[in-house]
Amino acid sequence: MLRAIAWTGDGLSLLDQTRLPGEEHWVRCSTVEEVASAIREMKVRGAPAIGIAAAFGVVLAVKEALRRGGDPWEAAGEAVDTLAATRPTAVHLFWALDRMRRAVERLRGGDGRTLAEMLEAEASAMAEEDEAINRAIGRWGKELVPDGARILTHCNTGALATGGYGTALGIVRAAAEAGKRVQVWVGETRPFLQGARLTAYELLRDGIDATVITDSTAGALMAKGWVDAVIVGADRIAANGDVANKIGTYSLAVLAQFHDIPFYVAAPVSTFDPNLEEGGEIPIEERDPREVLEVAGVAVAPRGAKALHWGFDVTPHRLVSAIVTEKGILRAPYGPAIRRLGFKSESSGGESLLRSRGGLPPHGGG
Amino acid sequence: MLRAIAWTGDGLSLLDQTRLPGEEHWVRCSTVEEVASAIREMKVRGAPAIGIAAAFGVVLAVKEALRRGGDPWEAAGEAVDTLAATRPTAVHLFWALDRMRRAVERLRGGDGRTLAEMLEAEASAMAEEDEAINRAIGRWGKELVPDGARILTHCNTGALATGGYGTALGIVRAAAEAGKRVQVWVGETRPFLQGARLTAYELLRDGIDATVITDSTAGALMAKGWVDAVIVGADRIAANGDVANKIGTYSLAVLAQFHDIPFYVAAPVSTFDPNLEEGGEIPIEERDPREVLEVAGVAVAPRGAKALHWGFDVTPHRLVSAIVTEKGILRAPYGPAIRRLGFKSESSGGESLLRSRGGLPPHGGG
Repeated sequence: MLRAIAWTGDGLSLLDQTRLPGEEHWVRCSTVEEVASAIREMKVRGAPAIGIAAAFGVVLAVKEALRRGGDPWEAAGEAVDTLAATRPTAVHLFWALDRMRRAVERLRGGDGRTLAEMLEAEASAMAEEDEAINRAIGRWGKELVPDGARILTHCNTGALATGGYGTALGIVRAAAEAGKRVQVWVGETRPFLQGARLTAYELLRDGIDATVITDSTAGALMAKGWVDAVIVGADRIAANGDVANKIGTYSLAVLAQFHDIPFYVAAPVSTFDPNLEEGGEIPIEERDPREVLEVAGVAVAPRGAKALHWGFDVTPHRLVSAIVTEKGILRAPYGPAIRRLGFKSESSGGESLLRSRGGLPPHGGG
Repeated sequence: MLRAIAWTGDGLSLLDQTRLPGEEHWVRCSTVEEVASAIREMKVRGAPAIGIAAAFGVVLAVKEALRRGGDPWEAAGEAVDTLAATRPTAVHLFWALDRMRRAVERLRGGDGRTLAEMLEAEASAMAEEDEAINRAIGRWGKELVPDGARILTHCNTGALATGGYGTALGIVRAAAEAGKRVQVWVGETRPFLQGARLTAYELLRDGIDATVITDSTAGALMAKGWVDAVIVGADRIAANGDVANKIGTYSLAVLAQFHDIPFYVAAPVSTFDPNLEEGGEIPIEERDPREVLEVAGVAVAPRGAKALHWGFDVTPHRLVSAIVTEKGILRAPYGPAIRRLGFKSESSGGESLLRSRGGLPPHGGG
């Protein structure tokens, strides 16, 4: 089984996703700063994978403080702040850091070594749980996939983006494992080409029929009647079901509705941000325009050209046919369906990162 | 004024559009085969520019026949066949070759040198007329552009794609020359990146405000309310107003309708193919999948990955707000509006290339 994150007890190894598929190069992170850089530079990417990597980043900070005789609790707090500042859109990062911070708070006043061990156990549990969650998403989601389905997906939502197996790709995998014939249209996903580079790589390894298209081919394929479903992941889902995901997702949702094709979102419950009422409140990362003006390090536009690089867009809930979680399939109206997932009021750790970074004042975690 | 095609009397020089903007490299074609290769390899591209280059290709074939003591009429016929087989979608190629063939027929039985001179004059006239046509398109079209408009365009429809000035970009230029403030969103246009490479290059030279986006960003920009109009070119327009244009155009048209944004097509009258009743009959070029799997010669997908590469798509007329031609602005219902352009029955040169390549039996050129 393909995995992109390996914890070695004293360091975090990441399969560098900027170099795939050309090179299978592992980056070793020994400090929280190295983990933060790897997240910023997208060597590790995908909402769940970022969360897991960040959790181990906190562990590295605490271990370093112990080695140097510093305060491990203080180091943990600083690590959480550093990591929370790396990327703004995917909520899984804040969710994972909140979880680590609650563990830190529970152990405050105890032994530093125990703290390190407990945090290491917490991060490892998060990684393992994530794969189990994705397999559950796959079990639910495969029921939405008819035999012979031609599925269009975007970006990479597979083993590389998660603790293993994948979310939207987890559904594809589960359908294939259940003996259904599936064919996948892989949107290349400019500018980082996660589709062409990573999703095609995963599906080729698994022997699942995959065909790369430019992102702008999706409409023509749908018009031809060659797409039976669109399945994508999510970086953050608001309380009303609005979905932030990789730039281009919204265009696919509009096109799917125009062609009467179901548009499914696959995401663990940790992707929901009950503190944001609607998608307009989700912070959208704006990245370096050079990432649009260059491809694989080669300039494609003239010197002096301007570009706009939004990393994500928001798909309104009315364009979403269903949201597949590990707890089941959610359908409209999404507000009540999301509330029934039972988000707890997060009072244990004080003000949560989610709340402090959301656009709205905190309210009861309903 | 930027030009990409230069006739030197004994050869055709083409500004190599596969190397722009990094290099301003001119390719010299001395034979019809070299012109055909340049068209196939997209060193010259853009529907009108392809037509002009092909016309000069016929001239080169006739001149070579004269030098070698061959039959210039036979050489002209073979040249037309060779050039007509280069690219299937843009009708301007067939229109220009038909025009050359009619000139050849008119001069049959005359002097070979006169034939060469007349064909050279015909091709040169076509190139000059094209710029005048584009300026007329600009004059009509600029009335559709409000002051301060944020215009989204796709591919390259500028001086590089035509005999000069451009079609959709001609409208942008005319609006700017009329003192209107315009801002252009340039869709990069994968896989060949004509937007990022060529349109950004032209607009930067002209000092028109341009910002490159990935093709998949268009929907998010529209949702944000940052697009006032979409203006694109066309490679072939059927008798009912259905428009074949660069892949991705159809997605933009659907997105524009969803967001209630006008979607304009700019095209010379020679883009209409009155022999095809609707867009489904337009042959769509399928190109080498490697052009999707590689960017700037660098492989972006894993070895063994499959890709689909359609060069064009078809936008149904009901998604088109207006078609801007040199004769005026056409609005729905397009059938009668297009018939009023007054296509003549093309009986002079026997079976026309258009008819022999269209999907329907020939009918009166109404």
